[in-house]
Amino acid sequence: MAVTMRDVAKAAGVSPASVSFALRGDPRIKQETARHIIDVANRMNYSVNITAKSLRSGRTGVIEAAVFQLDRPFYAQLLAGVSNAAFDRGIQAVAQQISTGKVGHEKSILEKVANKFCDGVILSAGGLSDAEIIELSGGKPVVLLDDQSYQGPFDSVFTPCENGAEAAVTHLFEIGCERVGLIGTDFMPADQACRSMHVGDRRLIGCHRAFERHERTLTKADTIQLFDWGTDDAYRAVSRRIEEGDFPFDGLFCMTDAIAFGTLRALREHGIGVPDDVAVIGFDGVREGSYSAPTLSTIAVDIDKLAREAVDILCERIEEGRYGAPAMPKHVTVGYEVLVRESSNRTR
Amino acid sequence: MAVTMRDVAKAAGVSPASVSFALRGDPRIKQETARHIIDVANRMNYSVNITAKSLRSGRTGVIEAAVFQLDRPFYAQLLAGVSNAAFDRGIQAVAQQISTGKVGHEKSILEKVANKFCDGVILSAGGLSDAEIIELSGGKPVVLLDDQSYQGPFDSVFTPCENGAEAAVTHLFEIGCERVGLIGTDFMPADQACRSMHVGDRRLIGCHRAFERHERTLTKADTIQLFDWGTDDAYRAVSRRIEEGDFPFDGLFCMTDAIAFGTLRALREHGIGVPDDVAVIGFDGVREGSYSAPTLSTIAVDIDKLAREAVDILCERIEEGRYGAPAMPKHVTVGYEVLVRESSNRTR
Repeated sequence: MAVTMRDVAKAAGVSPASVSFALRGDPRIKQETARHIIDVANRMNYSVNITAKSLRSGRTGVIEAAVFQLDRPFYAQLLAGVSNAAFDRGIQAVAQQISTGKVGHEKSILEKVANKFCDGVILSAGGLSDAEIIELSGGKPVVLLDDQSYQGPFDSVFTPCENGAEAAVTHLFEIGCERVGLIGTDFMPADQACRSMHVGDRRLIGCHRAFERHERTLTKADTIQLFDWGTDDAYRAVSRRIEEGDFPFDGLFCMTDAIAFGTLRALREHGIGVPDDVAVIGFDGVREGSYSAPTLSTIAVDIDKLAREAVDILCERIEEGRYGAPAMPKHVTVGYEVLVRESSNRTR
Repeated sequence: MAVTMRDVAKAAGVSPASVSFALRGDPRIKQETARHIIDVANRMNYSVNITAKSLRSGRTGVIEAAVFQLDRPFYAQLLAGVSNAAFDRGIQAVAQQISTGKVGHEKSILEKVANKFCDGVILSAGGLSDAEIIELSGGKPVVLLDDQSYQGPFDSVFTPCENGAEAAVTHLFEIGCERVGLIGTDFMPADQACRSMHVGDRRLIGCHRAFERHERTLTKADTIQLFDWGTDDAYRAVSRRIEEGDFPFDGLFCMTDAIAFGTLRALREHGIGVPDDVAVIGFDGVREGSYSAPTLSTIAVDIDKLAREAVDILCERIEEGRYGAPAMPKHVTVGYEVLVRESSNRTR
């Protein structure tokens, strides 16, 4: 006989309404309780059957990818990859920009589209809490991009922040740089950075590791903080530091390629040679880096693979017909390649 | 007493079914007939009232912008502008990529999203015919971007192709270039190009004009054709021409900034100085041009204005509750600025 919601409620020791809330990802249910209920429902083979049926009937054949800014090269290339991967599966992807330059709008922006039109969402969640994401998902599958809760209940794909950053800084030391600077996130001691899942802090951890391996200690003096990671911001921040005479670096790890493009420009305008005076390496591997002058060394993330992994996991969850958070969320980190181009092409 | 569909049919001399088809933009009705019916319906104040009501009830508060490739800087920046303009109006915009690198998929891609989820669509239509666009719109408002039918029945926003290209080539002549080359579309005589509404041909017309004004005749030998307008394609095509010794130019007008970035790279790799040996100017005004080395001179289109105009017109049509093609389509061409940066900064 089919397992009913009442059976699940009884087994989980909660009310049927709580089961319903939990399976819909309703935030009125505490996260631990929701996980417990979902576990029980899965064990009893309840949620899968019911929700598969319900989702299948309501499917739109459209998934959404929501990112901060459509016009950042990394996101633009990721979104093109998501579109292509979706197309190959016979479904459509739409993209949405969730940043308006104003704080606190992500939720209202996502609500309208993600909930109503899509079978699932790939989300660069940023400042949203787990509870907000659960609420936003409306019970539909969500795959997070660089999920900041990490141990949270979501399927997630990650850029290789720690290892990639470590490889970038190691590369700078290996070509003979003595004063390596980091541009992006603010300085934090390693033990503190380890408790953060922000992309910048995760990349900082990799830098700490590389410094340690080369018997150096990373300090605040080695970092240039940016409040926004845009090309303009990097250009202005680096220019200011050079003009203030506070620029002792002979190697720079820029935490994104966009930051690196602004940095290259600032160095060039101030007559600082790259790679001879300062070697520069970015992170992302966007296409533009192969056309910049000098061409940009970078931690080339497999952006297409990142897109495909996200679409694959999302589609799998949609096929499963799963509601709410999965019992065993998948966490995939894609690979990278240290791409040495002109901006760091020198030897000791 | 309210005007009925039967009244409109009688006044227009058609069947009520034809009225219904015409108002839904159904392609089974010939375009001229549909226009006639819509005109009659508007004159009788029929379509506006009825469809406003019907649309109002079904509105989603979401518009779509569909472009060829999400990862081309021009489109990426346009889409960010559309998102911001929509947000300012309290609605949401989603973006969709309609190119898959395969021919003939635009229609199937658009069908699913545009018809079902959106109150209206901003469309970079490319190879679609008027009939296909009418069918795709499903009776919802459509604003075309660089509409290739021009005198067609759609509201459209245009980039300043003819005047912008003329200004670009004029700039190259004015700084003393003797052999100006064009990279982008294939050569066509002026009278032939005038009959085409393809973006490349429209830009070519401006080039013809500038050549004439400087008492020169533009010929096939002055053009480098690209089959795709990507940075890579431009890089390869220009490299090939240089290596074949078929590169007599001292000034180049690249029909997009993306083409210009590939061109700059090819020139640099072959030891050709910019702007001293060859002056280069692009078209679009994407942000990347202010960071390239050398920085890129360009016909800076007001991309943000283009986005806002498209959203404004679309929202106006949605407010009107208009079905099918409007009686008086709006055609707006945005302005441009000749932005002289390093890549053409030289004097006679």
